[in-house]
Amino acid sequence: MNDAELSKIKIGIAGLGLIGGSLAMAFKHKVGSIVVGFDNNPQTISSAIKTGAVNTASTSVDLLFDADYIFVALYPEDIIAFINTNAARFKKGSVIIDCCGVKTYIFDAVSDTADANGFYFIGGHPMAGTEKSGFSAANEDLFKGASFILTPPKAVPENIISNLSKLLTLIGFKQIVLTSPEHHDRMIAFTSQLPHILSCAYVSSPCCAGHKGFSAGSYRDVSRVANINPPLWAELFIDNKKALCEEIDILIYNLLELREASATGDFIKLTALLTKARTIKDGADLVE
Amino acid sequence: MNDAELSKIKIGIAGLGLIGGSLAMAFKHKVGSIVVGFDNNPQTISSAIKTGAVNTASTSVDLLFDADYIFVALYPEDIIAFINTNAARFKKGSVIIDCCGVKTYIFDAVSDTADANGFYFIGGHPMAGTEKSGFSAANEDLFKGASFILTPPKAVPENIISNLSKLLTLIGFKQIVLTSPEHHDRMIAFTSQLPHILSCAYVSSPCCAGHKGFSAGSYRDVSRVANINPPLWAELFIDNKKALCEEIDILIYNLLELREASATGDFIKLTALLTKARTIKDGADLVE
Repeated sequence: MNDAELSKIKIGIAGLGLIGGSLAMAFKHKVGSIVVGFDNNPQTISSAIKTGAVNTASTSVDLLFDADYIFVALYPEDIIAFINTNAARFKKGSVIIDCCGVKTYIFDAVSDTADANGFYFIGGHPMAGTEKSGFSAANEDLFKGASFILTPPKAVPENIISNLSKLLTLIGFKQIVLTSPEHHDRMIAFTSQLPHILSCAYVSSPCCAGHKGFSAGSYRDVSRVANINPPLWAELFIDNKKALCEEIDILIYNLLELREASATGDFIKLTALLTKARTIKDGADLVE
Repeated sequence: MNDAELSKIKIGIAGLGLIGGSLAMAFKHKVGSIVVGFDNNPQTISSAIKTGAVNTASTSVDLLFDADYIFVALYPEDIIAFINTNAARFKKGSVIIDCCGVKTYIFDAVSDTADANGFYFIGGHPMAGTEKSGFSAANEDLFKGASFILTPPKAVPENIISNLSKLLTLIGFKQIVLTSPEHHDRMIAFTSQLPHILSCAYVSSPCCAGHKGFSAGSYRDVSRVANINPPLWAELFIDNKKALCEEIDILIYNLLELREASATGDFIKLTALLTKARTIKDGADLVE
């Protein structure tokens, strides 16, 4: 499809928070799509309509059912309930893409429903966000330069993936990454869940309350994502516990190695460990 | 002293790297001080003179000995060697301030020398820096808005501390924090050393090399300070190992609590732990 054809794909958004609200604005303003929204908060619906983020929206899901692509930007358990409850009502051949941070757990819970009801389910994860949440934090440029990870099952036709990727590029995503749900979950355990876990563990030190005057950039950066949405992340951690716990174990092993070299005053070993870390960091960030 | 009197205090800087170079520029340009520098790298001396960061500088320490205040911006072991080796040559009544990230270890190693040779030693720690190092990264605005921690022994007269504090404010420091070497070391173990340790432990995961496409802000922030200067930080960690190991142990305890709640799928416990962390973080950053 060319851009004009892509703009005719009708977009549904379930959940108009930070991610859903930003998707709605971006599709409406950058692609010219017809965007219909659902959220169970009447104030959010009213804001979304008033600010022009959607063509129409409602606290009922009914508006969504003639959409070609529906992005589901809800919490994990709500995504599963939304898809399984409404399965028979989605347009045949339509594409449902979730937007949460775990993929195997969601896929296992909805893939049979998709097959049985004639729609496609594609796991999705926009790698963008802020420590703020809700529609009031949404903006149409949230996705600029970010990557969108897709974990499509084999049964999804190539042209659907290709059109979806083009659409996502039009709303600002720089990179579309195609992978398996399992690889996604392992990588996200490291790149996103572990930073949130360690940031929360970090600020839980008794020293945190008195940091002012003693802190600068390294405190600020490491503690930033402790400004967390607790129930959302609790769900995400539990739904991806296997990969997450493996990453926590690796982190603790590495911390203990650095601790041992510090405690015993082993300058050569400690310098070697820090040099290895720096080399990994430099190399990882250079790769294109 | 008023500003005009303060500008007549002759400033010596030993070590013209990121911190020493920035101090030199800031004193010369913001206070109008006479600044003399020492560094054992001839290229650094040449750059410092050429860029006007100092009035004069040399690879010999001789120029420093008629300075009123000498800032020693070297690695910990070099600070101790510099002070103990040159003790008899410092001007009587002059003030020597070190600029490294550990205070008890340095104080214990040089305080007798200061008492025996008629100069004052004040532990100092400018809470500013970047992940870059060397004179080429120095700039006169590095300290803008930062705090300078001082750990003066009781014997240092009040007016010296007051003049030093005023001078530091003139070069951009927003806050002068007076505390004991022991309290400094415990707080810095948390605010600065632990973030560097955990950032290095974090990037040492096998997943790090493949992060691109799967990572965003939380990876970027938590991994930033893994771009570390290994021998410098190895010295700092070892010189402050008691407080640092206590903080690593607290972090690991907190990580294990979060791991346990995730692994067992204990949503209520996990939400409570994350809420506690967020509350601490919010509260700690609000305090003025």
